[in-house]
Amino acid sequence: MPVTVKAHIAYRFCQPTDFLLQMEAAPIPEQILTGPGLATSDSAHFARVPGQDDIGHRIWLRVNGDFTADYTITADVQRTLADIATLEALEPHQLPGETVPYLFDSRFCPADRFHSFVDAEFPDLKGGARIVAIHDWVASNFTYEPGSSIATTTALDSFVERRGVCRDYAHVVVTMARASAIPARYVSCYAPGVDPQDFHAVAEVFLADPSGEPGTGNWHIIDATKMADPAKTVKIGVGRDAAEVSFLTSYGMAEMLDKQIEVTTA
Amino acid sequence: MPVTVKAHIAYRFCQPTDFLLQMEAAPIPEQILTGPGLATSDSAHFARVPGQDDIGHRIWLRVNGDFTADYTITADVQRTLADIATLEALEPHQLPGETVPYLFDSRFCPADRFHSFVDAEFPDLKGGARIVAIHDWVASNFTYEPGSSIATTTALDSFVERRGVCRDYAHVVVTMARASAIPARYVSCYAPGVDPQDFHAVAEVFLADPSGEPGTGNWHIIDATKMADPAKTVKIGVGRDAAEVSFLTSYGMAEMLDKQIEVTTA
Amino acid sequence: MPVTVKAHIAYRFCQPTDFLLQMEAAPIPEQILTGPGLATSDSAHFARVPGQDDIGHRIWLRVNGDFTADYTITADVQRTLADIATLEALEPHQLPGETVPYLFDSRFCPADRFHSFVDAEFPDLKGGARIVAIHDWVASNFTYEPGSSIATTTALDSFVERRGVCRDYAHVVVTMARASAIPARYVSCYAPGVDPQDFHAVAEVFLADPSGEPGTGNWHIIDATKMADPAKTVKIGVGRDAAEVSFLTSYGMAEMLDKQIEVTTA
Amino acid sequence: MPVTVKAHIAYRFCQPTDFLLQMEAAPIPEQILTGPGLATSDSAHFARVPGQDDIGHRIWLRVNGDFTADYTITADVQRTLADIATLEALEPHQLPGETVPYLFDSRFCPADRFHSFVDAEFPDLKGGARIVAIHDWVASNFTYEPGSSIATTTALDSFVERRGVCRDYAHVVVTMARASAIPARYVSCYAPGVDPQDFHAVAEVFLADPSGEPGTGNWHIIDATKMADPAKTVKIGVGRDAAEVSFLTSYGMAEMLDKQIEVTTA
Repeated sequence: MPVTVKAHIAYRFCQPTDFLLQMEAAPIPEQILTGPGLATSDSAHFARVPGQDDIGHRIWLRVNGDFTADYTITADVQRTLADIATLEALEPHQLPGETVPYLFDSRFCPADRFHSFVDAEFPDLKGGARIVAIHDWVASNFTYEPGSSIATTTALDSFVERRGVCRDYAHVVVTMARASAIPARYVSCYAPGVDPQDFHAVAEVFLADPSGEPGTGNWHIIDATKMADPAKTVKIGVGRDAAEVSFLTSYGMAEMLDKQIEVTTA
Repeated sequence: MPVTVKAHIAYRFCQPTDFLLQMEAAPIPEQILTGPGLATSDSAHFARVPGQDDIGHRIWLRVNGDFTADYTITADVQRTLADIATLEALEPHQLPGETVPYLFDSRFCPADRFHSFVDAEFPDLKGGARIVAIHDWVASNFTYEPGSSIATTTALDSFVERRGVCRDYAHVVVTMARASAIPARYVSCYAPGVDPQDFHAVAEVFLADPSGEPGTGNWHIIDATKMADPAKTVKIGVGRDAAEVSFLTSYGMAEMLDKQIEVTTA
Repeated sequence: MPVTVKAHIAYRFCQPTDFLLQMEAAPIPEQILTGPGLATSDSAHFARVPGQDDIGHRIWLRVNGDFTADYTITADVQRTLADIATLEALEPHQLPGETVPYLFDSRFCPADRFHSFVDAEFPDLKGGARIVAIHDWVASNFTYEPGSSIATTTALDSFVERRGVCRDYAHVVVTMARASAIPARYVSCYAPGVDPQDFHAVAEVFLADPSGEPGTGNWHIIDATKMADPAKTVKIGVGRDAAEVSFLTSYGMAEMLDKQIEVTTA
Repeated sequence: MPVTVKAHIAYRFCQPTDFLLQMEAAPIPEQILTGPGLATSDSAHFARVPGQDDIGHRIWLRVNGDFTADYTITADVQRTLADIATLEALEPHQLPGETVPYLFDSRFCPADRFHSFVDAEFPDLKGGARIVAIHDWVASNFTYEPGSSIATTTALDSFVERRGVCRDYAHVVVTMARASAIPARYVSCYAPGVDPQDFHAVAEVFLADPSGEPGTGNWHIIDATKMADPAKTVKIGVGRDAAEVSFLTSYGMAEMLDKQIEVTTA
């Protein structure tokens, strides 16, 4: 499924400022990228470093004054989709080492606070069935409300207030999955259908491979906002939560002047 | 400096339970390990997976009933120590990719909340000088008080209450370092001089190599409790904070029956 | 309904210490008190001051060394009970001035965080019907678990963790009532049936008088733990939340040596 | 010292909405009021109820559509000022009953979290001397930054972030005073010199009367923003914290259209 992404951002830095930019789609097998890619205005420094789990890149930049970045790509998404409800979870002791960090609590996903909730709310559900139930619970109990969360809002805050934006939906799903001993990470992405059009975020959970071979599993996209179709979602990067995959993290004052995201299917 | 570690833990699991064990010293160049190593009672499953940043290992176990682990090792610590106050920080844009995650907020280290504090308290200090000032500030303002923190205590809680144990001291140092744009991680370790003897935790910060070669740097141990001597500290593992390097993380009820740690120098 | 209360507490103070004691039943019309009342060991200072809303008393004491208080009373409870589900709420603008403070947020009852929850969970219910729904929601979603909360646990914490003791149940009910614009306060009390026997706490909400006369209303006991029968509950004092009606608040170190509560009906 | 207050607010309510208004200066002996007072646009309901501690009034209103309130008053402030540093604190057991609630934790003033801080930071200071030290500590460590706090910001948040507006300065002073066993309350007020001109808030602490007569004391204004002169401060109302003395609390959506405050001395 070819998906075309056009993204434009403009920022102003009033003094020489270092920042991380992470807005390029990740060059991973499940999405074949073609097109011009990233073009930025001049910068004193520009260096890519690997993203989390070697998925995509972060770019270190140093800029003084106005900065623009334009990103245009077409992604042929060839992601294998599964019927999540039918998948089993791996027993914790079977989990591959690289998934273990995604069991732990992170800045916005305090899973330690949610053990009693998930046990009480989803007592008889395991693995993919529990993930589907978590998705449905969030989708039906939350209201998508732009502006309702701030940079420090955690999954616990969102859970209480029952509202948020894509970041918050993803945090709550990630938190409840981890509280269920299922590895879960946060994925920044582009997706058609996101309304209003913007950078998007979804959760990803690690469930057993249907082959049943011990210790094998796969990551699956879960979007409780229901806005992103996993078959058309273009991943940028992953992390424990939003703290690790912002599209722009500035080490100094930064003023956003413009942001235009357009994601379409042919 | 040879350091001998003898550690013994005993747990009871009332049903088959998966858990992660991370109590072995990491086999890394800065500490040469000799001795019998780890011996555990029987388990239905035992598999090592790599620790964070490929430093040391975590072990997946599955046990029903009583479990004991005995760990005996001698570590020849050959760590290069530096005069931290003289080291510079790398500019953020020079930081290697593998240190970038240690700039971000984590479960117990909400650095985003501490920007104004570090700017106001340490306005003219940078790099190693700031790290020394952070160390001294924590050391002089905090009281070491066993039992004063709980599993969910964050650096923000500790900062307000001005007390804690090694975990909390490390969290506050890590948090203030990250708020200063200096990568900082949490290190679980063994160290002689820890009183009472127990697993220990320190902070580690990433500062520029004195060679001044661009983009090169090194991790340095910081212990604001002043109990651990970096020349005699035996690292177990690293992580963003305590959420990632517990010595034991259980996916089910676990009752601790015994814990004996003895760390000595010849 | 005569209810007999026997309460005994013993504390140790290692230096001269001021503390507030609030363990006497309130001498209010709805409960006629007979019996010996309070007997304490020697104290350097003993003075009653009025409790919140002039309901009952707090006692200032100053003690050095061991302290015991024995309290024995029989209360003839003549409280008018109502079918809460049938009562209406007063419109906010009709609320008497003395009930207004019980609309506001307090230490453990951050009602400001629960507006969206109560609107979403109880959309079509008002007044007493909403209160009954809140009671039922807490009663069915919470687990009574001694030791599961600490002195700083808020209603928000309890709401997330879905467990607590009487204090926490009362806080959550109070919080959701206030978020519904219904005045709600915290009541410390004695009640038969509390298991294990201890000081107890319930919520109280202010609803319109069935007479329908404008601006008139009454307070009604709500106990989502279902342990206390309002017809047999002996009130000690009221407050915005547990911060205001502890049975003992010490301004210095205090060691509890003993606490025995026995509440029976003839 | 005559102080003239002119206040104008305009709100829009899109449906019939109940709200509390508390913007009139309190008619208390320490400030003699003359002038036209309050004039509001039409409302379906208008009723004064006593403010906290019978200081001033709250007004219940019910309005549909646009609402304006204009308040003009001249206050002859005859407050007795004291040299706070010389005043003693009452021992807790000597505190009058009506001051006891102001020892307790409230929504934005979690004094229970600050005991170790005040003990460590102000170890040898008591009574008025400690209050002055708290004032100086906040004044010198905080930055006044409009827009830096939100409606749910607590004294703990402000303490960590070292910044805020008048509300936050008052909360931190109140919290540290209570943690020092000194009753402290929050006062909404008008004061010349507030920049930018707006409703203002200060702390008030209860210290012993210089006569030394047991159990007697007085409330004293403390403003760590240094903007308000106690001799020219016109009190509106008091409460445990900002949760209890907002100038407008709406039970429904409210849109602020205008707010103009002008406070001058002749």
